[in-house]
Amino acid sequence: MERSEEIGKENGDSEQKQSVTDGSICGYESLDRLLSANLQPQVCQEVSRLLLGLSCGQPLQSIAIPESAKSLSSEHDFDLQAFSFCADKELLRESRMVRVGLIQNSIVLPTTAPFLDQKRAIFQKLKPIIDTAGALGVNILCLQEAWMMPFAFCTREKRWCEFAEPVDGESTQFLQEFARKYNMVVISPILERDVNHGETIWNTAIIIGNHGNIIGKHRKNHIPRVGDFNESTYYMEGNTGHPVFETAYGKIAVNICYGRHHPLNWLAFGLNGAEIVFNPSATVGELSEPMWPIEARNAAIANSYFVGSINRVGTETFPNPFTSGDGKPQHSDFGHFYGSSHFSAPDASCTPSLSRYKDGLLLSDMDLNLCRQLKDKWGFRMTARYELYADLLARYLKPDFEPQVISDPLLHKKSS
Amino acid sequence: MERSEEIGKENGDSEQKQSVTDGSICGYESLDRLLSANLQPQVCQEVSRLLLGLSCGQPLQSIAIPESAKSLSSEHDFDLQAFSFCADKELLRESRMVRVGLIQNSIVLPTTAPFLDQKRAIFQKLKPIIDTAGALGVNILCLQEAWMMPFAFCTREKRWCEFAEPVDGESTQFLQEFARKYNMVVISPILERDVNHGETIWNTAIIIGNHGNIIGKHRKNHIPRVGDFNESTYYMEGNTGHPVFETAYGKIAVNICYGRHHPLNWLAFGLNGAEIVFNPSATVGELSEPMWPIEARNAAIANSYFVGSINRVGTETFPNPFTSGDGKPQHSDFGHFYGSSHFSAPDASCTPSLSRYKDGLLLSDMDLNLCRQLKDKWGFRMTARYELYADLLARYLKPDFEPQVISDPLLHKKSS
Repeated sequence: MERSEEIGKENGDSEQKQSVTDGSICGYESLDRLLSANLQPQVCQEVSRLLLGLSCGQPLQSIAIPESAKSLSSEHDFDLQAFSFCADKELLRESRMVRVGLIQNSIVLPTTAPFLDQKRAIFQKLKPIIDTAGALGVNILCLQEAWMMPFAFCTREKRWCEFAEPVDGESTQFLQEFARKYNMVVISPILERDVNHGETIWNTAIIIGNHGNIIGKHRKNHIPRVGDFNESTYYMEGNTGHPVFETAYGKIAVNICYGRHHPLNWLAFGLNGAEIVFNPSATVGELSEPMWPIEARNAAIANSYFVGSINRVGTETFPNPFTSGDGKPQHSDFGHFYGSSHFSAPDASCTPSLSRYKDGLLLSDMDLNLCRQLKDKWGFRMTARYELYADLLARYLKPDFEPQVISDPLLHKKSS
Repeated sequence: MERSEEIGKENGDSEQKQSVTDGSICGYESLDRLLSANLQPQVCQEVSRLLLGLSCGQPLQSIAIPESAKSLSSEHDFDLQAFSFCADKELLRESRMVRVGLIQNSIVLPTTAPFLDQKRAIFQKLKPIIDTAGALGVNILCLQEAWMMPFAFCTREKRWCEFAEPVDGESTQFLQEFARKYNMVVISPILERDVNHGETIWNTAIIIGNHGNIIGKHRKNHIPRVGDFNESTYYMEGNTGHPVFETAYGKIAVNICYGRHHPLNWLAFGLNGAEIVFNPSATVGELSEPMWPIEARNAAIANSYFVGSINRVGTETFPNPFTSGDGKPQHSDFGHFYGSSHFSAPDASCTPSLSRYKDGLLLSDMDLNLCRQLKDKWGFRMTARYELYADLLARYLKPDFEPQVISDPLLHKKSS
């Protein structure tokens, strides 16, 4: 078989269901759907309580999706789900309901296609999904990490840097139109080329305001060196701190991909006042799937904010085979990006996940007042004793740091 | 009905199965058992992969339990489960296998019984469970938070302080015998009375070495003020830092109960070199059950160490009714302690949980080399950029801290 055919086959339609890695079950869409298809309703409800939590003491409510939106999702073959988190009514503050959207998608053309064609094909694929979000009244929409290109960093080939764009480049302009049209804040994670700093490459999220203006950017703070995530070959640790963007619809921040493994990164966005933190990602099954539902949700609990987690879908195959530092033979793909985008709330509840295989749009309504309500309830900020940790981290940074270890004085005594 | 009868009924045998809060399903023992009883094996295996992860690419293995131990668990009616985490063989280090045990239990006598009787009845109940752990070759054993008393802090009555003991008190002495007999490290979380500091009360874990010696103690760092967890009425934030205890079987630490909500607390034990962190707890269903499987596991992933999570079981009813600050009528119990003790590993895998209703002993074999293997694989320490956070926390502590907020300059412009 020609390599290009192979690529065409694998990068094509995301609708084709695939076997899971171990071959035991074919193409189930998500854990939640697998459970609801296989459990009695009563059992399923209790399992959901344990796995997804409760919102105001009740299972999370679905939002009815209008027929027009259902038609679009069916026509363009993307998963469409919508939920509503519950919060208490307050007596001194109006509720601050916002509708938030996450989009996950596979690439469209083979990675051998001309780069501009690849990018524009993604634009074309996203258009009806973003239109659906806009038509459904989404206030804040976030796309996946490096959404305008294949996630080619596994290859270590520098030619993929050509996809990098300035903050106000073509991909931003594409999204600015939707922001204006739908009065919607859009978060656009791209590969950034920083011409003013000698063509430096960054992994950057651009925050587009609801008038189409660029509010600012955040550059990925923590860069992986694990598996085929050879991103440290391409770009360095971000230099934008932990900004929180005050938008028309609340205070938001972006923790890009691998930053979700760092509780301190999540903490910093919280200390700066974030109410929703987005985690646009690109991650593959064998490496991280069991971690995926844990880390974002822990961050939402610990920091009393909402989290929107996005992962791309599909398998991307590249022209030249590469090895993975695991002694296995060379191969041409990065593994299966398992989608499964979802929201987590500060009250420890979370939504079911989007498909593991299909493009998707996940909506959720949330009252941002819930963040403060949870701070008042649990008091994590007030009981945090930050002074202990400021001191510890300052000491830890020194090369001669001595950990606090109490050794058993009988350690080398023989057992009686 | 007399109140004492009521108490007797509720505090009695833990074996009696109870309805879950919403009444939909009666007395299932654990999420894992509920799923395996209701799913086809093939589906269950895939659900387990998503929920519990893989260990060396395989489902976590059970350890065969000898008939003698099974008989003890049956005779004394406690849940007994055993698993083995997998690690790679290294070429330059011997593997460091340890067998670790967690015990969860309900109290025995009504809380109206004489205090000494209540305590000694718990001793008697624990004896065969600890003997089973010893006979099975457990190297490190941890009991639940304040294991030698009812969790009476919901009442705000100061008379329960009578249960507090010095570090070398009766409860410690009780456990020192087992430590010597079985050459076993024992972690004993008690209510501590610190006579040398004016009868100060602490929530303390005592680390007993495998020769029966007291290696040291750790006092709970973070004290809750949520629901009926009125612990701040009884004791203050611990003054022992984040010690790691170097024992004959590895470097261990203790994050007591509410400290699990604080990622910085977990982090500090990791920075000090812990390989296993125990989280002895007492927590109830409606408040925290959906958080329970998330936080400890996130800590194991983020800090590349094992976590042993323990929660007590049963419902404890107190002589005098109390209110809960939620506008609801006075009541006499704290809610259902849902057990569900389990282990989490640094590779994101975790064991199934012990029963939600019964006493239990959970064993796990683990090669402590796995901690460093995961540090080498994922590099979370090296990519953590602690300097950013030392600086942020130092600034945050100042009363005039200014969060890093970038406001949309068009924030107050009317939408077009």
